[in-house]
Amino acid sequence: METSVAVIVPFESPSGASIDGLVGLVAADMERVNTTILSRTGSDVTMIPEVANHLISSGGKRLRPMLTLAMAHLTGYTGDGHVKLAAAVEFMHTATLLHDDVVDESEMRRGKLSARMLWGNEASVLVGDFLLGQAFRMMVEVGSLRALDILSAAAATIAEGEVMQLAAAKNTATTEDEYLAVIRGKTAELFAAACEVGPVLADRPKAEQAASRSFGMNLGIAFQLVDDVLDYGGKAAKLGKNIGDDFREGKITLPVVLAFRRGSDSERAFWIKALERGEISDSDLDHAIGLMNKHRALEDTISRAHHYGAMAVDALALFPASPMKTALEQVVAFCLARSH
Amino acid sequence: METSVAVIVPFESPSGASIDGLVGLVAADMERVNTTILSRTGSDVTMIPEVANHLISSGGKRLRPMLTLAMAHLTGYTGDGHVKLAAAVEFMHTATLLHDDVVDESEMRRGKLSARMLWGNEASVLVGDFLLGQAFRMMVEVGSLRALDILSAAAATIAEGEVMQLAAAKNTATTEDEYLAVIRGKTAELFAAACEVGPVLADRPKAEQAASRSFGMNLGIAFQLVDDVLDYGGKAAKLGKNIGDDFREGKITLPVVLAFRRGSDSERAFWIKALERGEISDSDLDHAIGLMNKHRALEDTISRAHHYGAMAVDALALFPASPMKTALEQVVAFCLARSH
Repeated sequence: METSVAVIVPFESPSGASIDGLVGLVAADMERVNTTILSRTGSDVTMIPEVANHLISSGGKRLRPMLTLAMAHLTGYTGDGHVKLAAAVEFMHTATLLHDDVVDESEMRRGKLSARMLWGNEASVLVGDFLLGQAFRMMVEVGSLRALDILSAAAATIAEGEVMQLAAAKNTATTEDEYLAVIRGKTAELFAAACEVGPVLADRPKAEQAASRSFGMNLGIAFQLVDDVLDYGGKAAKLGKNIGDDFREGKITLPVVLAFRRGSDSERAFWIKALERGEISDSDLDHAIGLMNKHRALEDTISRAHHYGAMAVDALALFPASPMKTALEQVVAFCLARSH
Repeated sequence: METSVAVIVPFESPSGASIDGLVGLVAADMERVNTTILSRTGSDVTMIPEVANHLISSGGKRLRPMLTLAMAHLTGYTGDGHVKLAAAVEFMHTATLLHDDVVDESEMRRGKLSARMLWGNEASVLVGDFLLGQAFRMMVEVGSLRALDILSAAAATIAEGEVMQLAAAKNTATTEDEYLAVIRGKTAELFAAACEVGPVLADRPKAEQAASRSFGMNLGIAFQLVDDVLDYGGKAAKLGKNIGDDFREGKITLPVVLAFRRGSDSERAFWIKALERGEISDSDLDHAIGLMNKHRALEDTISRAHHYGAMAVDALALFPASPMKTALEQVVAFCLARSH
């Protein structure tokens, strides 16, 4: 672990840890993606664009569709299909968020009331289904069966990861491996698929497809690990995130897994009481963060994130130097730098 | 209306109103569909096959996948793709039911506790998403972009119909046309798509594709209208259905639309109180059925169903006589005969 942290240190410098390079390079394509997103949320049933756009226009970074555009660009694709696939990826992501908020009974999303608080669980479930249907329509229009294969498999795997998380929920005995299986499914798979379809459209060799997938998968894992850390502090407030949501929902994330395993019997009793039985008093979040600091659980989760970030960067090694490659390396550094 | 009722009278005879003919003709293929369904609900995440099979094995007739097999057969398809597409159609249907039960807060489904009562709303939403993902994977494996186009468009349209129903919910002023738009989306579209992909696989002319789609669409409308009637009595008990669910949920179906429009001011006040405000006493369901009988609302809903049934049968006229064609005509009669 320590070694891999050292390896990626250069990317942590403020100048290199940014998505600005990526944003600039895909700006023209992203405008077409945004137009596509707007037109494909249209429906005579007015509740559909209302609910969809509430979330879609809520200031997400649209990292996933940018990755699709970037990998298509990096691998020399000159067609049009990447725009619709990028929009489809964002729709899949949005559908997942709508359904997640129902599953987690979340009241807030990106600093705004969640769609389910404004339009109800019913609308969130159904508009999610609509967006998923529209995503597949766009993929079909692009006409690449291989891209369809990748993205439809991702749809099933994402749901599988979410169910796995549900089954593991409130189980403090979850192992790090089990936890990793969950986030590979629920988060990293869509990053992987979003990246993989780029070289697939460009009809590039298997090795480039595998490298792109690996870049996305490891970036996605790093991204989720940092997200888990942010729920217990760090720069969360600055990023418009609540602190303690995972804790209050009894979600088992890596910081919890590490603190629980490294803790004493009485500390484990605390975690079980709080996360499994949901008995949480006002001071418990502070106590939880204290235990995490004591056992270096947040620090080591970040170390783990750096490990996956390094793998993501190495996956790109196959590709010759280019401004896009540099921009993608900076995205990895950006995702890691969010934690501090 | 009266005329069309007369036209379809022959199909109402007990001998011709049956799905047995269809069941027999597709039996061999259906066994392969059932094997596919079982293998595709498999997952290391044990909650997935548990939830999926609870519903899938709960004794549904599997009418939709049988229609896919039947239309492929009717139009001379000799390949294998219809089996996976039929399984995909059943998965789409099952996903819709899982999500519907969450949206409607239903406690029962096909005479058993609904999945959400046993595993929670979360599992119902996510396993539905998983099945939808698996459905698309199977479609991709079949490799027909045209079939993918039809089924992905159906997925979006079904969700759109459900959202439309949500927006119309508890609105007694819903018109018959608005109601029809809802059931075309939420029910008939999947029947239409299930039928249309048969001749598409068989690479038959547009006219046969359109006829198959029209057969499915009109059969689906007739099916839903009879379902709506069953919620207010008829043979509901014999079919393992509850009476009064729609009424208690404030669902606006055609019997309500007709009774409301034909009613006096005080009767309308009753419907508004019961369906819009949800103020329902023990005797109100009987009163509602009384008003429907007074205004022939159930009878005329069945007349409307016969109209669409007749259109379904006429859509088949294009195809030469065959045992399969006869079996499909009998399915229409069967769906209509469920009402009495």
